[in-house]
Amino acid sequence: MTAPGALIGIDWGTTSFRAYRIGFDGQVIEARSAPAGILKVQGGAFEAVLEREIGPWLHDGPDLPVLAAGMITSRQGWVEVPYCPCPAGSAEIARALWRHETGRGRIVHFVPGVAFVAADGVPDVIRGEETQIIGEAGAASGRRLLVLPGTHSKWALVEGGRIVWFATFMTGEVFGVLKEHSILGRMVADEADDAQAFQRGLAYARAEGGGLLKRLFSARTLVLFDQLRPAGVASYLSGLLIGTEVGEALDCLADAPAGREITVIGSSELTAAYLSAIEHAGLRGRRAAADAGAHGLFLIARAAGLVR
Amino acid sequence: MTAPGALIGIDWGTTSFRAYRIGFDGQVIEARSAPAGILKVQGGAFEAVLEREIGPWLHDGPDLPVLAAGMITSRQGWVEVPYCPCPAGSAEIARALWRHETGRGRIVHFVPGVAFVAADGVPDVIRGEETQIIGEAGAASGRRLLVLPGTHSKWALVEGGRIVWFATFMTGEVFGVLKEHSILGRMVADEADDAQAFQRGLAYARAEGGGLLKRLFSARTLVLFDQLRPAGVASYLSGLLIGTEVGEALDCLADAPAGREITVIGSSELTAAYLSAIEHAGLRGRRAAADAGAHGLFLIARAAGLVR
Repeated sequence: MTAPGALIGIDWGTTSFRAYRIGFDGQVIEARSAPAGILKVQGGAFEAVLEREIGPWLHDGPDLPVLAAGMITSRQGWVEVPYCPCPAGSAEIARALWRHETGRGRIVHFVPGVAFVAADGVPDVIRGEETQIIGEAGAASGRRLLVLPGTHSKWALVEGGRIVWFATFMTGEVFGVLKEHSILGRMVADEADDAQAFQRGLAYARAEGGGLLKRLFSARTLVLFDQLRPAGVASYLSGLLIGTEVGEALDCLADAPAGREITVIGSSELTAAYLSAIEHAGLRGRRAAADAGAHGLFLIARAAGLVR
Repeated sequence: MTAPGALIGIDWGTTSFRAYRIGFDGQVIEARSAPAGILKVQGGAFEAVLEREIGPWLHDGPDLPVLAAGMITSRQGWVEVPYCPCPAGSAEIARALWRHETGRGRIVHFVPGVAFVAADGVPDVIRGEETQIIGEAGAASGRRLLVLPGTHSKWALVEGGRIVWFATFMTGEVFGVLKEHSILGRMVADEADDAQAFQRGLAYARAEGGGLLKRLFSARTLVLFDQLRPAGVASYLSGLLIGTEVGEALDCLADAPAGREITVIGSSELTAAYLSAIEHAGLRGRRAAADAGAHGLFLIARAAGLVR
């Protein structure tokens, strides 16, 4: 038997369940994942899924604190936990942990999502990504700008370890619906990764005049005028959208320059695309450390006094 | 029998066929339409549709010139006609008419679409809308800025009766795919026209910082925070997108101010929405005269010497 560790951290999202057994040094000892996201749990049987997925860990370490973050704390999840407002660092989130006793008497500490209300009154929310942001930048001094690419990309500004601003960009979802359901997607033939088309999309995202609604149509006209091959339309569109996202995010922060470096937290493929877009915009990108989410859960647990 | 008139004008688009019998004063004597757009014509049987739809007019006026515009001149149409480049007025388009003799010996003059290639080399195209633009502004002096709302909205700048710039905005299609296929559409419940939500969308389109990819997510968070009712999400999204389009179009023209008045050519419902968005942006909107497309065909026919 291995040492049980200091903590069990869970990232329980819409489509997947990920769990980490974490040591006293904050490193991941063991990880596991299952396609058991909250949308796949029938009849609210969350406790049964938890016991099934990490029962052996709980058996070996019955006193290990358990922290769970992600959509599991949403209205569609196990327990709806109120958002923690910005600025939010590990201390603020730790104070807002939601202690829940399961049917068989185990304690699960639910990690709240984080809300940011802009000066114009429009709110934004994250639920799950906050642990990755805290894991990557929650122990850093100074300012850090991070992006978590995805269906709904998140950009976050961290100051002194606390999230002071973030924003959601619907880039991945807009890409998906345009590719699947619009006239632009219908033009795609024999789709292939096309680095040149991606770069051209990045460049056009930064063109003078107009914006995305105007520029999208170029994916059609460039093909009509034999300047883009149909197989490259998806890559072009990806470049145009990611380039637009980077431009919008930097525009949001025009009054709060966050240095010239942006940390990307994500899958390797998307991360490469974002690093390319960041470089195209004249900034420096870097990859986040591995297991940022698990490390964030560790920092929050330590701030809550659950790990000493 | 009524006088046959001076001209038969046809607007033959993707989904519908519209024909006008036009008098020597340029006024429409008789109009008809059918759901016989080019996508509904089987096996290239365009001539049969033409004879079916306007056979009686052709019988009464066998020598009437026939002009046809729209997607009928595209690769998927009857005869693919090369685009007429900008600047394009009735004279330039008249010179580029494509004379076609049908199987039974009738002459159809196909009206070319118009192409504009921006300084950055990115092309844009219209096919059909040019007759409406010419009809509304082709006989005017000075500058005119026009918008034709729709799936692919077109904005055009006309100087001395010639189209000198235009741009396509994928507003209507983006609205459609987001409403039908995205998480935002899934939030809509009991959709209803909501003028207040539309206005809020217009306002947020003009907010400081960021752009459309960021702002779209507000349609979700405003509902989460009880600031927008689910029934109003579609109206909010419509305001956000149309407001963004107006902003992008004006940004395209930042170096070429076209006065403070914008003419809207479109269906009454969409026109009302655009007039509202134009007013919200601090400009003056006006509705186009009726039958702009038919009048444009008349001006082009006259410039071609087909009507005296």
